[in-house]
Amino acid sequence: MDVLDRLRAELGDLVDTSAAALDDARADKSGHRSSAPPLAVVHAEAVEHVQATLRIASATGTPVVTRGAGTGLAGAANAGGGEIALSVRRMTRILEVSPDDLLAVVEPGILNADLNAQLAPYGLWWAPDPASRAISTVGGNIATGAGGLLCAKYGVVRDAVLGVDVVLADGRLIRMGHRSVKGVTGLDLTSLMIGSEGTLGVIVGATLKLRRLVPGDVCTIAATFPTVRDAASGSSAVTAAGIQPAIMELMDATSLAAAHALLALPAPTPGASQLTIQTDGPAARTEADAVADVLRRAGGTVTTTYDREEGERLLAIRRAMHPAMESLGTALIEDVSVPRSRMAAMFDEIARVERKHGVGIPTVAHAGDGNLHPNFIFQGDEVPDAIWAAADDLFRAAIRLGGTLTGEHGIGVLKRRWLADELGDDQWQLQRDIARVFDPQGILNPGKVFEA
Amino acid sequence: MDVLDRLRAELGDLVDTSAAALDDARADKSGHRSSAPPLAVVHAEAVEHVQATLRIASATGTPVVTRGAGTGLAGAANAGGGEIALSVRRMTRILEVSPDDLLAVVEPGILNADLNAQLAPYGLWWAPDPASRAISTVGGNIATGAGGLLCAKYGVVRDAVLGVDVVLADGRLIRMGHRSVKGVTGLDLTSLMIGSEGTLGVIVGATLKLRRLVPGDVCTIAATFPTVRDAASGSSAVTAAGIQPAIMELMDATSLAAAHALLALPAPTPGASQLTIQTDGPAARTEADAVADVLRRAGGTVTTTYDREEGERLLAIRRAMHPAMESLGTALIEDVSVPRSRMAAMFDEIARVERKHGVGIPTVAHAGDGNLHPNFIFQGDEVPDAIWAAADDLFRAAIRLGGTLTGEHGIGVLKRRWLADELGDDQWQLQRDIARVFDPQGILNPGKVFEA
Repeated sequence: MDVLDRLRAELGDLVDTSAAALDDARADKSGHRSSAPPLAVVHAEAVEHVQATLRIASATGTPVVTRGAGTGLAGAANAGGGEIALSVRRMTRILEVSPDDLLAVVEPGILNADLNAQLAPYGLWWAPDPASRAISTVGGNIATGAGGLLCAKYGVVRDAVLGVDVVLADGRLIRMGHRSVKGVTGLDLTSLMIGSEGTLGVIVGATLKLRRLVPGDVCTIAATFPTVRDAASGSSAVTAAGIQPAIMELMDATSLAAAHALLALPAPTPGASQLTIQTDGPAARTEADAVADVLRRAGGTVTTTYDREEGERLLAIRRAMHPAMESLGTALIEDVSVPRSRMAAMFDEIARVERKHGVGIPTVAHAGDGNLHPNFIFQGDEVPDAIWAAADDLFRAAIRLGGTLTGEHGIGVLKRRWLADELGDDQWQLQRDIARVFDPQGILNPGKVFEA
Repeated sequence: MDVLDRLRAELGDLVDTSAAALDDARADKSGHRSSAPPLAVVHAEAVEHVQATLRIASATGTPVVTRGAGTGLAGAANAGGGEIALSVRRMTRILEVSPDDLLAVVEPGILNADLNAQLAPYGLWWAPDPASRAISTVGGNIATGAGGLLCAKYGVVRDAVLGVDVVLADGRLIRMGHRSVKGVTGLDLTSLMIGSEGTLGVIVGATLKLRRLVPGDVCTIAATFPTVRDAASGSSAVTAAGIQPAIMELMDATSLAAAHALLALPAPTPGASQLTIQTDGPAARTEADAVADVLRRAGGTVTTTYDREEGERLLAIRRAMHPAMESLGTALIEDVSVPRSRMAAMFDEIARVERKHGVGIPTVAHAGDGNLHPNFIFQGDEVPDAIWAAADDLFRAAIRLGGTLTGEHGIGVLKRRWLADELGDDQWQLQRDIARVFDPQGILNPGKVFEA
């Protein structure tokens, strides 16, 4: 019996070989596609389905690519020829909410926004807030170590996960982590799973650390600056003033103009960059006034609102970035992160790369945490070599500034060729060897993260 | 040339074989001692000394036990016969403080309290706050995943470390992690090192995530309750009211009486247990009043002070716990952690274990995060079998309640026999295999964490 027959014999209708499903599984939101469709998509609806799939995969040496909603930006969930695409998107149950323990136990396929909608009546939320929250799954957020807009104030994914249930390559189920606030029994495998991009095992459940909903106002400050460097300096001045906004987003001139055009708003002043900042909590208004003051002194033209809905309208310009870029062509969205103090220097580097390579690189940044998204725009499906050369120059600049290749999107296929540049060969090999402990046959997402 | 000759040839005076040094290296603060002195203590003063020691150790197959200040509570840093005790206690430099990036780069041997004293002029602090902070090192805090009093509000060690520099078993130096707020390049080896208790490598540097000093008052509330169960319910009521104190400590009747006796204070009401709570930040007074109100309604007799020094006097009773226990005999300090909602149930289990085994188990708890320290008191150096039997009963109860063996002290030698009970055999083996990737010869802290 071949793999497909074995899958069908055990999993019946959950095995999908329709052309539409196979085609879907080839791509995520990175613009990258695998070169051929996978063997099948398995729509797991329970842990046992994941276990059965992996038992068959390991018995037959068949590669497995785990997928959630397919919203990744590095190609990590793209399934190709000869591979099983294992979707956990149908596993959407919330198994437990414990307000007293500030935790929830969930299946991996639930959307981030759906989870938060269901937590709201308890007065609780899960802080990780990727821009994709309406369409991305909690399991995918964990598997990629997704970030978002709120990280400087409310933490990254690894701060918000207490434990994960993992199916290993051979189908065994392991429960990692704990339900208590503290726990140091043995090695922290939960953290190792976060951001492992499908290379160590399949996350089939998670114990999430929740927060209480933040009481008080949400205030929004929008400030425009003559240059992107001025805007970056403005954000540094906010940080230096000891204020911790919930959100601090920066858009450069090209991004701002494109978002305005998409939303049919009046064109911004040519060259103008914008900071959009939100403060929250009991001191939101005081902090908003202080932020506005700092930004004015930094040369910004400032608008402040204490109204939550008006604030959302201001932030909508930032949220229109991805569709605005798509309106210009295919976007290769990069994701470098630098220490906050080096952000202005990173913008200088981006300008240098633009000049040197003759490409425009519209950039937005989560300015509060130094995470920049330079967008390389091109036409067609394949990233042209010239774009890769410019991206290479940009990555190396970020590393020189004490930064990292990827703040929140992960390595996937798109950044694997730079992984060893950042880690060094010794650490690359060590990581590779650790992955082999989990997956001795190399059937879990082969060719992703670690170049073959 | 034997090991000692090779060490002396390369490291000269840093190799210490004095009887006092060898004896010192046999014990930590757990009350446990190794059965024989180590070969030598190497006092590393720089990364190269650590590398040289490990090159010699791996060339000769000699076990290495890394030590900081020797304040551990699980025996992980105790060095025995045939082993090299590698002390990093002299590596105390702060290499960088970046207020703009809220980070510091430090050597591992600096004491937690010394670091914080040097950060204070910058208006910064490193949040991990183990009770041992005056005498324990930052490297030791990281290697054990130390907790403390402030974790529910300000996080655990893994929330406060961005990167670590690690010397591997063969002497190679690897830099793990990053300097930016976000970073998901490859596997999160930094988190894997946190709490690894010397089994994966030697931490020779750390990039720490700092916080700004919290402005505002520190208010303290002390409340006594007729029973320990009532005190536990009081702390749950505070959490349920949505208030997040900085500190919430619980002392049972025996602990409270012993601390009062040690400090020559009037004896407390027989049977009375106490909660000591601190609120901080701009809303400290409002929160303190709210806490006092909740505790009164929960049946507590409440004292509140807005004065920081008076608050420290109230907290001094809690801080006298360890010496108070030592005044009663040798203390085996346990460290179970349960979900906050199960704390009253855990106190019921402790009472059951006391009755069943005929032992008194004075207990304090970091009530805000469900971390309990039951103290088994005995006479002499060796833990009697009857005490181990009671501890075994207690550990299993904690695990049944969804808790963990150790919230913040680690496994070391004292808890390794229960490790597989909590992890399960499959995960135990997986962790063991990961450790072997770092340390193929098994020379790093052999017999610790994983039973031989």
